[in-house]
Amino acid sequence: MQAGQLLKQIEFIKEIDKLKYITRKTKLINSDRNENDAEHSWHLAMMAIILSEHANFPIDVLKVVKMLLIHDIVEIDAGDTFIYDTVKNHTNTDEERLAAERIFGLLPEDQAGELIAIWEEFEGQETNDAKFARAMDRLEPLLQNVSNNGGTWQEFDIPFEKVHQKKQAIQLGSEAIWAYAEQLLNESVANGILRKS
Amino acid sequence: MQAGQLLKQIEFIKEIDKLKYITRKTKLINSDRNENDAEHSWHLAMMAIILSEHANFPIDVLKVVKMLLIHDIVEIDAGDTFIYDTVKNHTNTDEERLAAERIFGLLPEDQAGELIAIWEEFEGQETNDAKFARAMDRLEPLLQNVSNNGGTWQEFDIPFEKVHQKKQAIQLGSEAIWAYAEQLLNESVANGILRKS
Repeated sequence: MQAGQLLKQIEFIKEIDKLKYITRKTKLINSDRNENDAEHSWHLAMMAIILSEHANFPIDVLKVVKMLLIHDIVEIDAGDTFIYDTVKNHTNTDEERLAAERIFGLLPEDQAGELIAIWEEFEGQETNDAKFARAMDRLEPLLQNVSNNGGTWQEFDIPFEKVHQKKQAIQLGSEAIWAYAEQLLNESVANGILRKS
Repeated sequence: MQAGQLLKQIEFIKEIDKLKYITRKTKLINSDRNENDAEHSWHLAMMAIILSEHANFPIDVLKVVKMLLIHDIVEIDAGDTFIYDTVKNHTNTDEERLAAERIFGLLPEDQAGELIAIWEEFEGQETNDAKFARAMDRLEPLLQNVSNNGGTWQEFDIPFEKVHQKKQAIQLGSEAIWAYAEQLLNESVANGILRKS
Protein backbone atom coordinates (compact mmCIF):
# COMPACT_ATOMS: atom_id res chain seq x y z
CA MET A 1 0.00 0.00 0.00
CA GLN A 2 2.64 2.53 1.08
CA ALA A 3 4.91 1.23 -1.73
CA GLY A 4 2.06 1.70 -4.21
CA GLN A 5 1.57 5.26 -2.97
CA LEU A 6 5.26 5.96 -3.43
CA LEU A 7 5.36 4.63 -6.99
CA LYS A 8 2.47 6.90 -7.99
CA GLN A 9 4.20 9.85 -6.37
CA ILE A 10 7.44 9.08 -8.23
CA GLU A 11 5.56 8.98 -11.54
CA PHE A 12 4.16 12.43 -10.81
CA ILE A 13 7.60 13.73 -9.80
CA LYS A 14 9.09 12.50 -13.07
CA GLU A 15 6.20 13.88 -15.13
CA ILE A 16 6.45 17.42 -13.77
CA ASP A 17 10.10 17.61 -14.87
CA LYS A 18 8.53 18.71 -18.17
CA LEU A 19 7.65 22.09 -16.64
CA LYS A 20 11.33 22.98 -17.18
CA TYR A 21 10.70 23.06 -20.95
CA ILE A 22 7.66 25.35 -20.92
CA THR A 23 8.94 28.72 -22.05
CA ARG A 24 7.40 32.02 -21.01
CA LYS A 25 7.40 35.21 -23.07
CA THR A 26 9.15 37.14 -20.31
CA LYS A 27 12.94 37.18 -20.10
CA LEU A 28 15.17 36.91 -17.03
CA ILE A 29 16.38 40.03 -15.22
CA ASN A 30 18.83 42.00 -17.42
CA SER A 31 18.78 39.23 -19.97
CA ASP A 32 17.52 38.11 -23.37
CA ARG A 33 17.04 34.53 -22.17
CA ASN A 34 13.39 33.46 -21.82
CA GLU A 35 12.28 32.18 -18.44
CA ASN A 36 10.80 28.71 -18.07
CA ASP A 37 7.85 27.79 -15.88
CA ALA A 38 9.86 25.81 -13.30
CA GLU A 39 12.27 28.70 -12.65
CA HIS A 40 9.34 31.09 -12.58
CA SER A 41 7.49 28.96 -10.02
CA TRP A 42 10.61 28.76 -7.83
CA HIS A 43 10.99 32.54 -7.94
CA LEU A 44 7.34 33.23 -7.05
CA ALA A 45 7.50 30.82 -4.08
CA MET A 46 10.61 32.63 -2.83
CA MET A 47 8.83 35.98 -3.27
CA ALA A 48 5.81 34.82 -1.28
CA ILE A 49 8.07 33.71 1.58
CA ILE A 50 9.99 36.98 1.59
CA LEU A 51 7.05 39.34 1.04
CA SER A 52 4.31 37.71 3.15
CA GLU A 53 4.40 40.49 5.76
CA HIS A 54 3.05 42.91 3.15
CA ALA A 55 -0.17 40.96 2.49
CA ASN A 56 -3.39 42.91 3.11
CA PHE A 57 -4.57 40.09 5.41
CA PRO A 58 -3.10 37.11 7.22
CA ILE A 59 -2.12 34.40 4.74
CA ASP A 60 -1.27 30.71 5.03
CA VAL A 61 2.31 30.85 3.71
CA LEU A 62 2.61 27.09 3.11
CA LYS A 63 -0.66 27.09 1.14
CA VAL A 64 0.46 30.09 -0.94
CA VAL A 65 3.84 28.48 -1.60
CA LYS A 66 2.19 25.22 -2.72
CA MET A 67 -0.16 27.25 -4.92
CA LEU A 68 2.73 29.03 -6.62
CA LEU A 69 4.85 25.91 -7.02
CA ILE A 70 1.98 24.14 -8.84
CA HIS A 71 0.12 27.05 -10.50
CA ASP A 72 1.62 26.49 -13.96
CA ILE A 73 1.86 22.68 -13.98
CA VAL A 74 -1.21 22.47 -16.25
CA GLU A 75 0.88 24.24 -18.90
CA ILE A 76 2.79 20.97 -19.43
CA ASP A 77 -0.24 19.95 -21.49
CA ALA A 78 -1.95 23.26 -22.23
CA GLY A 79 1.09 25.44 -22.98
CA ASP A 80 1.88 28.94 -21.74
CA THR A 81 -0.68 31.65 -22.41
CA PHE A 82 0.71 35.16 -22.77
CA ILE A 83 -1.12 37.50 -20.41
CA TYR A 84 -1.71 40.12 -23.13
CA ASP A 85 -2.91 37.57 -25.70
CA THR A 86 -6.34 38.81 -26.81
CA VAL A 87 -7.33 35.64 -28.64
CA LYS A 88 -6.48 32.81 -26.26
CA ASN A 89 -8.30 33.35 -22.99
CA HIS A 90 -6.01 33.30 -19.99
CA THR A 91 -8.70 32.10 -17.63
CA ASN A 92 -9.40 28.55 -16.68
CA THR A 93 -9.92 26.81 -20.03
CA ASP A 94 -11.23 23.32 -20.57
CA GLU A 95 -7.77 22.36 -21.78
CA GLU A 96 -6.23 23.41 -18.47
CA ARG A 97 -8.84 21.51 -16.49
CA LEU A 98 -8.15 18.33 -18.45
CA ALA A 99 -4.44 18.88 -17.87
CA ALA A 100 -4.97 19.25 -14.11
CA GLU A 101 -6.95 16.02 -14.03
CA ARG A 102 -4.37 14.11 -16.02
CA ILE A 103 -1.22 15.38 -14.29
CA PHE A 104 -2.36 15.68 -10.66
CA GLY A 105 -4.34 12.48 -11.31
CA LEU A 106 -1.03 10.59 -11.42
CA LEU A 107 -0.86 11.06 -7.63
CA PRO A 108 -2.68 9.01 -4.98
CA GLU A 109 -6.31 10.14 -4.84
CA ASP A 110 -6.12 12.25 -1.67
CA GLN A 111 -3.09 14.22 -2.90
CA ALA A 112 -4.55 14.64 -6.39
CA GLY A 113 -7.70 16.06 -4.81
CA GLU A 114 -5.74 18.44 -2.59
CA LEU A 115 -3.59 19.83 -5.41
CA ILE A 116 -6.47 20.19 -7.85
CA ALA A 117 -8.37 22.09 -5.15
CA ILE A 118 -5.41 24.42 -4.54
CA TRP A 119 -4.99 25.00 -8.29
CA GLU A 120 -8.71 25.77 -8.59
CA GLU A 121 -8.48 28.13 -5.62
CA PHE A 122 -5.70 30.02 -7.42
CA GLU A 123 -7.69 30.19 -10.65
CA GLY A 124 -10.86 31.24 -8.81
CA GLN A 125 -9.16 34.27 -7.19
CA GLU A 126 -11.67 34.53 -4.39
CA THR A 127 -9.61 33.72 -1.32
CA ASN A 128 -6.93 35.82 0.37
CA ASP A 129 -4.27 33.18 -0.33
CA ALA A 130 -5.14 33.14 -4.03
CA LYS A 131 -5.05 36.95 -4.22
CA PHE A 132 -1.63 37.17 -2.61
CA ALA A 133 -0.32 34.39 -4.88
CA ARG A 134 -1.62 36.27 -7.93
CA ALA A 135 0.13 39.44 -6.72
CA MET A 136 3.45 37.55 -6.82
CA ASP A 137 2.67 36.29 -10.33
CA ARG A 138 2.07 39.87 -11.50
CA LEU A 139 5.09 41.40 -9.76
CA GLU A 140 7.86 39.14 -11.08
CA PRO A 141 7.43 39.94 -14.81
CA LEU A 142 7.14 43.63 -13.90
CA LEU A 143 10.61 43.51 -12.33
CA GLN A 144 11.87 41.60 -15.37
CA ASN A 145 10.40 43.99 -17.95
CA VAL A 146 11.71 47.07 -16.13
CA SER A 147 15.22 45.53 -16.07
CA ASN A 148 14.99 44.79 -19.80
CA ASN A 149 14.08 48.29 -21.02
CA GLY A 150 10.43 47.41 -21.33
CA GLY A 151 10.85 43.73 -22.27
CA THR A 152 7.57 42.24 -23.51
CA TRP A 153 5.82 45.65 -23.33
CA GLN A 154 8.15 46.85 -26.05
CA GLU A 155 8.32 43.56 -27.94
CA PHE A 156 4.53 43.24 -28.24
CA ASP A 157 3.74 46.97 -28.10
CA ILE A 158 1.57 46.83 -24.97
CA PRO A 159 0.45 50.28 -23.76
CA PHE A 160 0.60 51.53 -20.16
CA GLU A 161 -3.18 51.34 -19.68
CA LYS A 162 -3.31 47.63 -20.44
CA VAL A 163 -0.29 46.87 -18.26
CA HIS A 164 -1.72 48.97 -15.42
CA GLN A 165 -5.03 47.12 -15.64
CA LYS A 166 -3.38 43.68 -15.43
CA LYS A 167 -0.95 44.71 -12.68
CA GLN A 168 -3.73 46.17 -10.54
CA ALA A 169 -4.39 42.63 -9.32
CA ILE A 170 -1.37 43.22 -7.08
CA GLN A 171 -3.45 45.69 -5.05
CA LEU A 172 -5.92 42.95 -4.09
CA GLY A 173 -3.08 41.04 -2.43
CA SER A 174 -0.96 43.88 -1.07
CA GLU A 175 -1.50 47.64 -0.98
CA ALA A 176 2.17 48.14 -0.02
CA ILE A 177 3.51 46.15 -2.97
CA TRP A 178 1.01 47.82 -5.29
CA ALA A 179 2.28 51.27 -4.23
CA TYR A 180 5.77 50.15 -5.24
CA ALA A 181 4.57 48.52 -8.46
CA GLU A 182 2.54 51.52 -9.56
CA GLN A 183 5.55 53.73 -9.00
CA LEU A 184 7.61 51.41 -11.23
CA LEU A 185 4.95 51.69 -13.94
CA ASN A 186 4.92 55.49 -13.75
CA GLU A 187 8.72 55.59 -13.87
CA SER A 188 8.64 53.29 -16.89
CA VAL A 189 6.44 55.77 -18.73
CA ALA A 190 8.74 58.64 -17.71
CA ASN A 191 11.77 56.65 -18.91
CA GLY A 192 10.13 55.93 -22.26
CA ILE A 193 10.07 52.13 -21.92
CA LEU A 194 6.25 52.02 -21.58
CA ARG A 195 4.03 54.18 -23.82
CA LYS A 196 0.67 55.70 -22.95
CA SER A 197 -1.92 54.89 -25.63
CA MET B 1 10.24 51.81 7.53
CA GLN B 2 7.96 49.31 5.80
CA ALA B 3 8.90 50.86 2.42
CA GLY B 4 12.58 50.47 3.34
CA GLN B 5 11.98 46.81 4.19
CA LEU B 6 10.27 46.28 0.86
CA LEU B 7 13.10 47.85 -1.15
CA LYS B 8 15.65 45.55 0.50
CA GLN B 9 13.44 42.57 -0.18
CA ILE B 10 13.08 43.56 -3.84
CA GLU B 11 16.88 43.82 -4.18
CA PHE B 12 17.19 40.28 -2.84
CA ILE B 13 14.44 39.03 -5.17
CA LYS B 14 16.24 40.54 -8.16
CA GLU B 15 19.62 39.17 -7.06
CA ILE B 16 18.48 35.57 -6.72
CA ASP B 17 17.31 35.58 -10.35
CA LYS B 18 20.96 34.64 -11.00
CA LEU B 19 20.30 31.14 -9.63
CA LYS B 20 18.69 30.41 -13.00
CA TYR B 21 22.14 30.56 -14.64
CA ILE B 22 23.93 28.17 -12.28
CA THR B 23 24.23 24.92 -14.18
CA ARG B 24 24.39 21.50 -12.56
CA LYS B 25 26.18 18.47 -13.94
CA THR B 26 22.98 16.42 -13.93
CA LYS B 27 20.65 16.50 -16.91
CA LEU B 28 16.85 16.64 -16.98
CA ILE B 29 14.78 13.44 -17.16
CA ASN B 30 15.25 11.71 -20.54
CA SER B 31 17.28 14.64 -21.76
CA ASP B 32 20.74 15.93 -22.59
CA ARG B 33 19.92 19.41 -21.27
CA ASN B 34 21.68 20.33 -18.03
CA GLU B 35 19.49 21.33 -15.11
CA ASN B 36 19.91 24.74 -13.46
CA ASP B 37 19.76 25.41 -9.74
CA ALA B 38 16.44 27.29 -9.79
CA GLU B 39 14.62 24.46 -11.59
CA HIS B 40 16.33 21.96 -9.30
CA SER B 41 15.20 23.86 -6.19
CA TRP B 42 11.63 24.01 -7.49
CA HIS B 43 11.62 20.27 -8.12
CA LEU B 44 12.99 19.41 -4.67
CA ALA B 45 10.40 21.62 -2.95
CA MET B 46 7.65 19.84 -4.91
CA MET B 47 9.12 16.46 -3.94
CA ALA B 48 9.17 17.39 -0.24
CA ILE B 49 5.50 18.39 -0.39
CA ILE B 50 4.51 15.18 -2.19
CA LEU B 51 6.70 12.76 -0.22
CA SER B 52 6.49 14.17 3.32
CA GLU B 53 4.38 11.22 4.55
CA HIS B 54 7.38 8.93 4.02
CA ALA B 55 9.68 10.80 6.43
CA ASN B 56 11.08 8.71 9.29
CA PHE B 57 9.77 11.33 11.74
CA PRO B 58 7.33 14.24 11.74
CA ILE B 59 8.73 17.14 9.71
CA ASP B 60 7.89 20.84 9.41
CA VAL B 61 6.94 20.90 5.73
CA LEU B 62 7.13 24.69 5.39
CA LYS B 63 10.63 24.72 6.94
CA VAL B 64 11.80 21.90 4.65
CA VAL B 65 10.35 23.67 1.60
CA LYS B 66 12.10 26.93 2.54
CA MET B 67 15.32 24.98 3.08
CA LEU B 68 15.13 23.39 -0.36
CA LEU B 69 14.13 26.62 -2.13
CA ILE B 70 17.20 28.39 -0.71
CA HIS B 71 19.74 25.55 -0.30
CA ASP B 72 21.71 26.37 -3.45
CA ILE B 73 21.45 30.18 -3.42
CA VAL B 74 25.06 30.44 -2.18
CA GLU B 75 26.11 28.91 -5.51
CA ILE B 76 25.33 32.27 -7.16
CA ASP B 77 28.73 33.32 -5.77
CA ALA B 78 30.42 30.00 -5.02
CA GLY B 79 29.34 27.99 -8.08
CA ASP B 80 28.00 24.45 -8.25
CA THR B 81 30.10 21.68 -6.68
CA PHE B 82 29.73 18.25 -8.27
CA ILE B 83 28.90 15.70 -5.57
CA TYR B 84 31.57 13.25 -6.81
CA ASP B 85 34.27 15.93 -7.12
CA THR B 86 37.19 14.65 -5.04
CA VAL B 87 39.14 17.91 -5.06
CA LYS B 88 36.61 20.60 -4.21
CA ASN B 89 35.01 19.79 -0.87
CA HIS B 90 31.25 19.71 -1.07
CA THR B 91 30.78 20.64 2.56
CA ASN B 92 30.29 24.10 3.88
CA THR B 93 33.25 26.04 2.52
CA ASP B 94 34.34 29.52 3.54
CA GLU B 95 33.33 30.67 0.07
CA GLU B 96 29.76 29.47 0.62
CA ARG B 97 29.57 31.14 4.02
CA LEU B 98 30.67 34.46 2.54
CA ALA B 99 28.10 34.01 -0.21
CA ALA B 100 25.35 33.38 2.34
CA GLU B 101 26.27 36.53 4.22
CA ARG B 102 26.38 38.65 1.08
CA ILE B 103 23.22 37.38 -0.60
CA PHE B 104 20.90 36.81 2.39
CA GLY B 105 22.44 39.97 3.84
CA LEU B 106 20.58 41.98 1.19
CA LEU B 107 17.39 41.28 3.17
CA PRO B 108 16.18 43.09 6.30
CA GLU B 109 18.18 41.81 9.28
CA ASP B 110 15.52 39.50 10.78
CA GLN B 111 14.89 37.73 7.48
CA ALA B 112 18.60 37.49 6.67
CA GLY B 113 19.14 35.86 10.06
CA GLU B 114 16.28 33.42 9.56
CA LEU B 115 17.40 32.28 6.10
CA ILE B 116 21.08 31.98 7.06
CA ALA B 117 20.02 29.85 10.03
CA ILE B 118 17.90 27.60 7.79
CA TRP B 119 20.76 27.28 5.29
CA GLU B 120 23.15 26.38 8.13
CA GLU B 121 20.65 23.86 9.45
CA PHE B 122 20.61 22.18 6.04
CA GLU B 123 24.41 22.16 5.84
CA GLY B 124 24.72 20.88 9.43
CA GLN B 125 22.54 17.80 8.72
CA GLU B 126 21.68 17.29 12.37
CA THR B 127 17.95 17.96 12.46
CA ASN B 128 15.12 15.85 11.09
CA ASP B 129 14.08 18.61 8.69
CA ALA B 130 17.62 18.86 7.30
CA LYS B 131 17.85 15.08 6.87
CA PHE B 132 14.58 14.88 4.96
CA ALA B 133 15.61 17.83 2.77
CA ARG B 134 18.93 16.13 1.99
CA ALA B 135 17.04 12.95 1.04
CA MET B 136 15.17 14.94 -1.62
CA ASP B 137 18.45 16.40 -2.88
CA ARG B 138 19.88 12.89 -3.29
CA LEU B 139 16.77 11.35 -4.87
CA GLU B 140 16.21 13.79 -7.75
CA PRO B 141 19.55 13.21 -9.57
CA LEU B 142 19.09 9.46 -9.06
CA LEU B 143 15.82 9.60 -11.01
CA GLN B 144 17.52 11.76 -13.64
CA ASN B 145 20.56 9.47 -14.06
CA VAL B 146 18.43 6.34 -14.30
CA SER B 147 16.32 7.98 -17.03
CA ASN B 148 19.49 8.96 -18.91
CA ASN B 149 21.13 5.51 -19.09
CA GLY B 150 23.43 6.30 -16.20
CA GLY B 151 23.86 10.04 -16.85
CA THR B 152 26.69 11.49 -14.78
CA TRP B 153 27.66 8.01 -13.47
CA GLN B 154 28.60 7.07 -16.99
CA GLU B 155 29.93 10.49 -17.99
CA PHE B 156 32.33 10.69 -15.03
CA ASP B 157 32.80 6.93 -14.55
CA ILE B 158 31.46 6.80 -10.98
CA PRO B 159 31.20 3.24 -9.59
CA PHE B 160 28.21 1.75 -7.76
CA GLU B 161 29.98 1.79 -4.37
CA LYS B 162 30.55 5.55 -4.45
CA VAL B 163 27.00 6.27 -5.64
CA HIS B 164 25.56 3.94 -3.02
CA GLN B 165 27.55 5.68 -0.28
CA LYS B 166 26.32 9.15 -1.29
CA LYS B 167 22.72 8.04 -1.79
CA GLN B 168 22.60 6.35 1.60
CA ALA B 169 21.86 9.76 3.08
CA ILE B 170 18.32 9.14 1.83
CA GLN B 171 17.92 6.48 4.52
CA LEU B 172 18.44 9.06 7.28
CA GLY B 173 15.40 10.95 5.99
CA SER B 174 13.16 8.11 4.86
CA GLU B 175 13.53 4.33 5.11
CA ALA B 176 10.67 3.89 2.63
CA ILE B 177 12.25 6.11 -0.02
CA TRP B 178 15.64 4.52 0.60
CA ALA B 179 14.17 1.04 -0.08
CA TYR B 180 12.96 2.36 -3.44
CA ALA B 181 16.25 4.15 -4.18
CA GLU B 182 18.41 1.14 -3.32
CA GLN B 183 16.30 -1.00 -5.63
CA LEU B 184 16.88 1.53 -8.43
CA LEU B 185 20.63 1.33 -7.82
CA ASN B 186 20.62 -2.46 -7.92
CA GLU B 187 18.56 -2.44 -11.11
CA SER B 188 21.00 0.07 -12.61
CA VAL B 189 23.85 -2.37 -12.01
CA ALA B 190 21.79 -5.21 -13.49
CA ASN B 191 20.99 -3.05 -16.53
CA GLY B 192 24.64 -2.17 -17.07
CA ILE B 193 24.27 1.59 -16.56
CA LEU B 194 26.18 1.58 -13.24
CA ARG B 195 29.36 -0.52 -12.83
CA LYS B 196 30.61 -2.22 -9.68
CA SER B 197 34.25 -1.35 -9.02
